[in-house]
Formats: sequence, C-alpha cells, structure tokens
Amino acid sequence: MAKIVIGVMGPGESATAEDAQLAYELGRLIALRGWVLLTGGREHGVMDAALKGAQAAGGLTVGILPSASPKDVSAAVDIPIFTGLGEARNIVNILSSEVVLVCGMSAGTASEVAFALKTEKPVILVAAQPATIEFFSSLGANICNAEDAADAIRMTERLVEARMMYARGK
Amino acid sequence: MAKIVIGVMGPGESATAEDAQLAYELGRLIALRGWVLLTGGREHGVMDAALKGAQAAGGLTVGILPSASPKDVSAAVDIPIFTGLGEARNIVNILSSEVVLVCGMSAGTASEVAFALKTEKPVILVAAQPATIEFFSSLGANICNAEDAADAIRMTERLVEARMMYARGK
Amino acid sequence: MAKIVIGVMGPGESATAEDAQLAYELGRLIALRGWVLLTGGREHGVMDAALKGAQAAGGLTVGILPSASPKDVSAAVDIPIFTGLGEARNIVNILSSEVVLVCGMSAGTASEVAFALKTEKPVILVAAQPATIEFFSSLGANICNAEDAADAIRMTERLVEARMMYARGK
Amino acid sequence: MAKIVIGVMGPGESATAEDAQLAYELGRLIALRGWVLLTGGREHGVMDAALKGAQAAGGLTVGILPSASPKDVSAAVDIPIFTGLGEARNIVNILSSEVVLVCGMSAGTASEVAFALKTEKPVILVAAQPATIEFFSSLGANICNAEDAADAIRMTERLVEARMMYARGK
Repeated sequence: MAKIVIGVMGPGESATAEDAQLAYELGRLIALRGWVLLTGGREHGVMDAALKGAQAAGGLTVGILPSASPKDVSAAVDIPIFTGLGEARNIVNILSSEVVLVCGMSAGTASEVAFALKTEKPVILVAAQPATIEFFSSLGANICNAEDAADAIRMTERLVEARMMYARGK
Repeated sequence: MAKIVIGVMGPGESATAEDAQLAYELGRLIALRGWVLLTGGREHGVMDAALKGAQAAGGLTVGILPSASPKDVSAAVDIPIFTGLGEARNIVNILSSEVVLVCGMSAGTASEVAFALKTEKPVILVAAQPATIEFFSSLGANICNAEDAADAIRMTERLVEARMMYARGK
Repeated sequence: MAKIVIGVMGPGESATAEDAQLAYELGRLIALRGWVLLTGGREHGVMDAALKGAQAAGGLTVGILPSASPKDVSAAVDIPIFTGLGEARNIVNILSSEVVLVCGMSAGTASEVAFALKTEKPVILVAAQPATIEFFSSLGANICNAEDAADAIRMTERLVEARMMYARGK
Repeated sequence: MAKIVIGVMGPGESATAEDAQLAYELGRLIALRGWVLLTGGREHGVMDAALKGAQAAGGLTVGILPSASPKDVSAAVDIPIFTGLGEARNIVNILSSEVVLVCGMSAGTASEVAFALKTEKPVILVAAQPATIEFFSSLGANICNAEDAADAIRMTERLVEARMMYARGK
C-alpha cells in the first residue's frame, strides 16, 4: 500500500523567519507521524525548512523540482523528482499530496492553493493572514484554517483517517 | 514579426452573466485592435464569451485546451492547441499572452493570476472585487485594476506600446 | 470552425541542408492549401525552414516553444506559444497537429514520432531512412512513408478529407 | 544526500511475459543494491513487474503516474507522484532517474528512450532487438546494450560510481 504523502507549501526566497520556523515544525511533526513529506524541493524558504525538520525527525522526504537537473536542490531531499516543467510543477506538488499544508504566502504559493481548490484537494492554511483566508475561502469549500503547527497536524490526521475509512468502506 | 497575443482569463462553468458580457466586450475590442485573442479555449463562461466577441469582430482566436483531443472546445476557437496537461495548461495561457486580462474569479482563474504575478507578466483585473484586488496586490507589482473593458484596453495599449518601444530601443 | 493545423517536425541544430530544404517545401505547400503550419518554433533547422516556407507562401504559422519567454524564436512564427515545459512541449506539438509530417531524424524528433504513435495521431515520415521506417513501423499502424514533399501533401489531403467526411457523418 | 534513483521503463499493457520477467529481476536487483526504483507507476507490464520485484526485495519504489488521481496505480508503488500530465509525464520519468534501464519496446517506451538521448541521460537497453539498438544508437552516444539483468546492473553500478567520483572531485 502506498505511503501517506503530506505536502507543505510556502514561499521560497521570500519566506520570513516565522514562515521557515513554522515549516520546520510542520516537517518535523509530519515525519513523527510516519508520513512522507513532499515539498517543491528547492533549497530556499519553506521548502527547505520543512524538509530539514522532517529529516531531523528521521522522516522520508520528496522534492518536486521545477528544474530538469540537480541544481538548487535542498540537501534535505531524499527523493528528488526533476520535472523540467518550471512553474507547471506546482500542480504536481498538489496532486501528489494527500493533504496540503500552507505556511506563508507568495505568488507561487497562491498558485498552489488555487490548484488545490480547483482539484478539490484538502488544503489547510496555517497561521494565515485574514486577507488570504477571506480570498481563498470564497473560491472553494475544501479549505480550512489552523492556528499553529499542532492544530494543522490534528486536522491532517482527521483528514487522513477519514480517507482511509472511506477506502475501507468501498 | 510575431502577432500581438492578448489573453483573457476568467471562470468557466461558474462564470456569471456579467463576467460573460464583459469577456465578450474584451474579446471584441481585442480583435478590433488587430490583436490575437488567447483563452483557455473551452466552450464555457469567460473563455467562450471572449472568443465569440473576438470572432464576431473578425479577429483571430487561439484556445489552449487542457484536453488531449477535440472535446469541450469553443466553436469560436480558430487555432486549438491541445496540451493534454490538464490544469497545468494554465501556465501556458499566461506565458503565451503579452498582457493578461482577468474578468471574474474562480480557483482556476486565481491560479492564472498567481502565475502571472510569479512570472512577471502584466495582469489587469477588470471590474474585480475589493478582496481580490487586495489579495493579489500584496503578491506582486505587475498588476493593475481597470474599471471596465474600455479602460482595460487602454491600459493594454500602453503596455504593448511600451514593450515595442523597448524592443526597438535595444 | 477551427482551422486545419498541420505539424512539421524534424531536427533543430542537427538538421542537414536536405532536411531544411524539404521542410521549407513542406511549409510552402501547407500554406498554399490554406492550412496552418505548426512547428516547435525555434530558429533552427526543420522548424525554422518550414516556418519560412509557409510564411513565404502567405500562410499562418504557429510555434510551440519549449521556453517560457521570447528567446530563440524563429522570425517566421506568427503565433508563438510559450510553454516553459522544456522537452515536454513535444507532446503539445503532436496533440495540436491534425497530421504530423516528419523530415530528418534526431532524438527530439524520435520522441515526437513515438508520441504520435502512442496517441494514434497520423504521422508521415518523408524521405526517411530505412532503419527509421523499420523501427517505427513496428510500434504502431498510424504511420506511413512519403517519398517527397508532394507525396506527403497528397497523403495529408486524404487524411484531412477522411476526417472531415467522418465528422460530417456523425 | 539524495538517494540513488534508478528508472526501469518498458511497455505497459503490451509487455510480453519475457519483458515482465526481466523487469521483475531488474527491480529486485535494484532494491538489493539499496537504490530507489522509479517507474511509470501503472499496474501493467514492465512498470508493475519491476515495482513488484523491488518491493519483494525490500526496496523503496516511486511511481510517476500520468493521471491526476489514484487510479490504475500498481499496488507495489510506495510513493505515487500524480502528475495529471498524461503522456508528458514520460519526460519526468527520465529526468528523475540517474540511469534508465529499458526492457521491451513500445511507442511510449520509445518516447522515453528518445528523451533520455535528448537530455543526455545514461540509458541501457536490456536484451533489445537489433532494429531497436540500430535505430537509437544512431541518435546519441549515451546509450549502451546489456545482455541480461545482471549485465545491466553491473553497467549501472559503474555509471553510479563514476558520477559519485565526479561529484566528489568537484
């Protein structure tokens, strides 16, 4: 049976120190649950911090890179997937994550939240700004808000359990 | 020399009557300037209405389809580009438009505005909601707001002229 | 109703003088029939030559570029589609062409013929080497061989007519 | 440091019993070396057999799926990557594999070998037909032929070692 893959999305170079700290904690908690962490794989911001948090906790990590070859890859990626698709790789991030956790916001991150809403993938905004919550909540129902990392992980657990119960019921 | 290609993006099935009316007018005005209209090409909402407006005014139209083969294509597409990429085709819409005009909002449309901001493509929100303007304006500088179709086309003209002056200057 | 779009595929930088001459003639004949020419759009080899042939005959041309922005684009492209997908754009070339004409061979061209076979798109190898014909003929039935440009255009006409009769019959 | 990811490519539904047997053995040997196995992830032919071989030997497996959601996925995929890109996912298979092993041949497989040649990724044809070897050898230098699974794995070991020595030397 496939492993459970959880995505963490957020700004790269423009991430704040708070974004990175939150991402590290999300990565760590994901790894402690035995889930695989998936991010955009670059050695910047939220991607890099979440991967480092997961790796520090002994977790397995996947990075979906925009590039065609190994450059700008976080040292904490165990399995790099090189797409060569540029920004179009953002949709792969979303489709390959069972639940998408978002910390911080940027244009690239917004495209990922939008794709999650479009493809009806559960997405959790963690410690998001009110304008972000207001905007995205108007675009779809499969989105919720978490106050902090622990809250986000509890929501993720419930979503994973619900999916597994549904799968068993079929 | 390549023709000038202007994109119009907006909701498909969820477009309102106002969105569609605005899109038709944008398509018409784009065609009257001699520009090529590019949309997502499906026979729904803003895509379909803009294409019809352009075709009624004698313009040339391009549709970038998510599908791999001819289905759900607007009858007003002159040149269908079948990508087979699903939602990832949204990035092609943005990269292939010299200026992106947006009317209405949906998850798919939001992914396109986000990509435009990310790739520094000029994007004009036409008659947008305040929450939309507030959210996207915080993510990048290459975005502006137009009150109506005529206003949006004036802005587009200035952007096209500026790019051509820049190209001649090089 | 959508225009008829015919693709010409072949080597870029590695094209021979014969490949380029054949591509120019194919582009010219495609334009004379009133069809739209589609190629990979770069300013090299078969792509560039076919586009120039079509433009010299007054035709309309589309280039599906691997890049995300205008660089390395043939001056004979009327409508550039920037995909930012790198090599993955080859599949868009195939899906968007009603018939695929191939002159010359290279690794990139081979990926396009393979995709045409996989997606059951009619593909015509023009003046191909025996090893090429032997290899690809073993992989699918939707492939045929033409001796020269005039022969290839006759085959294309029959394929286009058959598709239109089929569409009318539905 | 990233794990070593080795790809096995070959026909899906059209695979022969010999293709599948060879793929199973390749998957098994890849897992025994501690490498990660990457395939196209579907529950057919070479993809499925290689994944099962790797999983039986306790290895870690990645499947790069053409679909946007879990359907037609091999039960032996540990980490499914859902691309939603259709056939365009073949390029992701190639870019994400350090070495590409090929058993059997089909149109889809041919597109993968062609992409490997185009992107200068080492590719090893295992027990291939003479027409296949002749055709692809004419298109690039980064291709070699192995008689059987053991031979292919020895070649892969040398390629992996050479890359690691090169990386250390930098």
